[in-house]
Amino acid sequence: MNVKETIEKLNELELQEFAYGHAMGILSYDDETVAPKGSVIPRGKTMGVLSELSYKLSTGDGAREILDALKEHYDELSPEDKRRADLREKRMRELRAIPVEEYVAYSQLVNDAANVWREAKNKSDYKLFEPYLGRIVEAQKRFAGLVRPDMDPYDYCLDQYEEGLTREKCEAFFKTLRERIVPLIDKVKAARPIDDAFVHVRFPIADQRELSQRLMDIMGLPRDNCILGEVEHPFTNGFSKHDVRITTHYYEDNFLSSMYSVIHEGGHALYDLHSDDRFCFTSLEGGVSMGVHESQSRFYENIIGRSREFVGLIYPELLRLCPRLAAHSVEELYRAANVALPSLIRTEADELTYPLHIMVRYEMEKAMIGGDVKTSELPEMWNALYKEYLGIDVPDDRSGILQDSHWSGGGIGYFPSYALGSAYGAQLLHKMREDFDVSGAIRQNELVKINNWLEDRIWKYGSLYKPAELMERAFGGPFDPKYYTDYLERKFTEVYGL
Amino acid sequence: MNVKETIEKLNELELQEFAYGHAMGILSYDDETVAPKGSVIPRGKTMGVLSELSYKLSTGDGAREILDALKEHYDELSPEDKRRADLREKRMRELRAIPVEEYVAYSQLVNDAANVWREAKNKSDYKLFEPYLGRIVEAQKRFAGLVRPDMDPYDYCLDQYEEGLTREKCEAFFKTLRERIVPLIDKVKAARPIDDAFVHVRFPIADQRELSQRLMDIMGLPRDNCILGEVEHPFTNGFSKHDVRITTHYYEDNFLSSMYSVIHEGGHALYDLHSDDRFCFTSLEGGVSMGVHESQSRFYENIIGRSREFVGLIYPELLRLCPRLAAHSVEELYRAANVALPSLIRTEADELTYPLHIMVRYEMEKAMIGGDVKTSELPEMWNALYKEYLGIDVPDDRSGILQDSHWSGGGIGYFPSYALGSAYGAQLLHKMREDFDVSGAIRQNELVKINNWLEDRIWKYGSLYKPAELMERAFGGPFDPKYYTDYLERKFTEVYGL
Repeated sequence: MNVKETIEKLNELELQEFAYGHAMGILSYDDETVAPKGSVIPRGKTMGVLSELSYKLSTGDGAREILDALKEHYDELSPEDKRRADLREKRMRELRAIPVEEYVAYSQLVNDAANVWREAKNKSDYKLFEPYLGRIVEAQKRFAGLVRPDMDPYDYCLDQYEEGLTREKCEAFFKTLRERIVPLIDKVKAARPIDDAFVHVRFPIADQRELSQRLMDIMGLPRDNCILGEVEHPFTNGFSKHDVRITTHYYEDNFLSSMYSVIHEGGHALYDLHSDDRFCFTSLEGGVSMGVHESQSRFYENIIGRSREFVGLIYPELLRLCPRLAAHSVEELYRAANVALPSLIRTEADELTYPLHIMVRYEMEKAMIGGDVKTSELPEMWNALYKEYLGIDVPDDRSGILQDSHWSGGGIGYFPSYALGSAYGAQLLHKMREDFDVSGAIRQNELVKINNWLEDRIWKYGSLYKPAELMERAFGGPFDPKYYTDYLERKFTEVYGL
Repeated sequence: MNVKETIEKLNELELQEFAYGHAMGILSYDDETVAPKGSVIPRGKTMGVLSELSYKLSTGDGAREILDALKEHYDELSPEDKRRADLREKRMRELRAIPVEEYVAYSQLVNDAANVWREAKNKSDYKLFEPYLGRIVEAQKRFAGLVRPDMDPYDYCLDQYEEGLTREKCEAFFKTLRERIVPLIDKVKAARPIDDAFVHVRFPIADQRELSQRLMDIMGLPRDNCILGEVEHPFTNGFSKHDVRITTHYYEDNFLSSMYSVIHEGGHALYDLHSDDRFCFTSLEGGVSMGVHESQSRFYENIIGRSREFVGLIYPELLRLCPRLAAHSVEELYRAANVALPSLIRTEADELTYPLHIMVRYEMEKAMIGGDVKTSELPEMWNALYKEYLGIDVPDDRSGILQDSHWSGGGIGYFPSYALGSAYGAQLLHKMREDFDVSGAIRQNELVKINNWLEDRIWKYGSLYKPAELMERAFGGPFDPKYYTDYLERKFTEVYGL
């Protein structure tokens, strides 16, 4: 095969891989949003078949010939195709190391586990979920050993969500965070508390739905390509740049919860919506890693969404939809949206204590993958870590170890992306401010300036660069968590008048 | 391959076919219910890939070897496996006659056409849809010529939805209907009109949703395997007996519309939910044809749902949810639910004039497939037929030729199933009454008796028998439309006091 033929074959192969991923993604989305309980049986069958077929497609003779041809012509390839060749080689190595039966059995395991986890959480009964979690952990360890026997198994897990991230990097990163954040949290605890009781005003869900639409307008989310669904645990599913689904959950007495989940998921969506058109239906379409993805979502949620300017921007809309809020000023609302207090639920946590929730999970994952703890002891460990890191008692498994869906879907190694993404976001803000008045853009409802900046430096590149390289290009230098800790210190010193 | 190996291979093949069908079905369901407009692009790609892969799977060497082995061992096969062999041979012949590129292009065409039709209907602009309808008609004619050059092309279309149905049988059937129904409609027109203005009382949608749940309870639809969604044009999607989706559309001033669409779709669902467990994930799972399917849905909608006993059964629930209805008696409601008047919209039509809507479409389809009419002339033809058959003027394309989705999905030849199914249903009622007191069962909220009877004679057989054979077994004799015309005559003579 010459280069042209090779790339044509590669495009065809990647389109087929896209189709399998898309079909399985829609099956999962359907499961999360509407599917009846009994659907677990046919979905398990279909997921099993499709994952086997997609495994065979990606590892079969055709794919191998393409990979060989890519390697043969490597020097003649464009930078885009070089990256595709690299990604393909990585994928081939990973998949071929795992026997197809194990690959298929694992896809069925996580299909079942997602359903069992939901039930276990509803009943606050960890015992139901324990055997599934045990099998998922065992599978992850086994896959790590098969694919990268040279690597620490937890490094392998981290690398699945943030290419190149390691335990060593995490340790250093979390150490820096701890050193700066823990004293700051202590100071906040000692400061005069902020009254945020008023945000728990009754805000009818129909009106919150309207607020969500307004938020999507402000963020510039095109409705023809992005819709908002309602689920128990909000997530984003970017099938392609033409079809991105965001979700939220409404609580009548907590409009900030859905407001910030819409902004968070909207940040994910913007990233997926703006991959370069050239990358459509190839391995370069869509966000490169969960760390970069979370950098966009948490940038939008916190750095933009919880800024004084954004709260001021949305304030008139809030008063229109919920007139009782008028008894409180923009400044009061801004401070209420930034109350920093150790709490129980990660997704509801404030910007300052949030990284501690991640560190709990990071410690848990290290122990699980390291085999240092029995699955039966995990709730106890979780609760002890919450006491140690956040100083709070976990009343039950529902709000403890069962609160997040990630592990039920096999997502061990994902959580550190959230903290890393938050830190990326702060460094992006620093850089963005060198180029234009970010606060002014928010104040004037010109988020398009922010979007254009991010599109130009992050979004349009899809998966073209490795995460660390992409961020360094955007930062104009190496990643440094000090921008994040500086940001947190500045913000919460000001909010709490420390 | 010996018989055992052959059947194992067949099971594996059919499971893979199920998986493709399920994935494509979920993609369509997602499209109908929630997907954003832009999803048409990735869905088109994915549908193209999956339909090509599924085509290759069903026609490839593996499938051919299985078919050869099935033929070789035909006499040793169980009746179930004989039927699977027959269905496979039919499918192989049909698919192999159509070149794969055309097969894939057609799947993309109907994906696009469904979206264009929605837009055209919204704008009441047939011109938008015309080129797509033209291409669909051309494709159907071409497929007919390729697959069954020995057959009348419209017979081929009919056979897709009701194996063995032909134009000749349709002509005879519709002739009988016309001869009995038209004079009856004339008598009804001359009779004293029934006052049904009160059913257009404001019935809040939230309360109609509750009514739907109550109806599903009465019908015995298990929620773990059957959910109700909301769409513009109600339909049922039975992915497997474990997961059946029904849908409805609510109008605040017309609760009977959603009530009868829930009952209708619920009838489809019951059929799909009760295939024998042995047939799961094989070609024998699920309803055998659209005619038999419609016999179950229209039996439930009209023969049960519009009976005096059923109206009496649901009456207290209606009063609870909509107290203003209390000004009217059960008898008044029963008569209002059976007002028979020529009208514009098929899905809202009464039981008596309904077949005329079908005959209009039947005449249209014959002309389209016969090439007797240009696509540009179709609206005119539609409107003329509505005038001739129903005596009414069609004000616009939205409520005229664009009212139904079927043709946009390629469903040419489907409509006669509705009328045939209605007639099947009446003959089933006749037979059922020989076995037990059907009216009494409804009155006493014991629809389980009806369900058991239908499960035993129809539902459990899935696709084991050809439609006509299945019905003859259930009837204990040949199909005869006189049961249908007798039923209509008896019912409407009584309702209108003719």
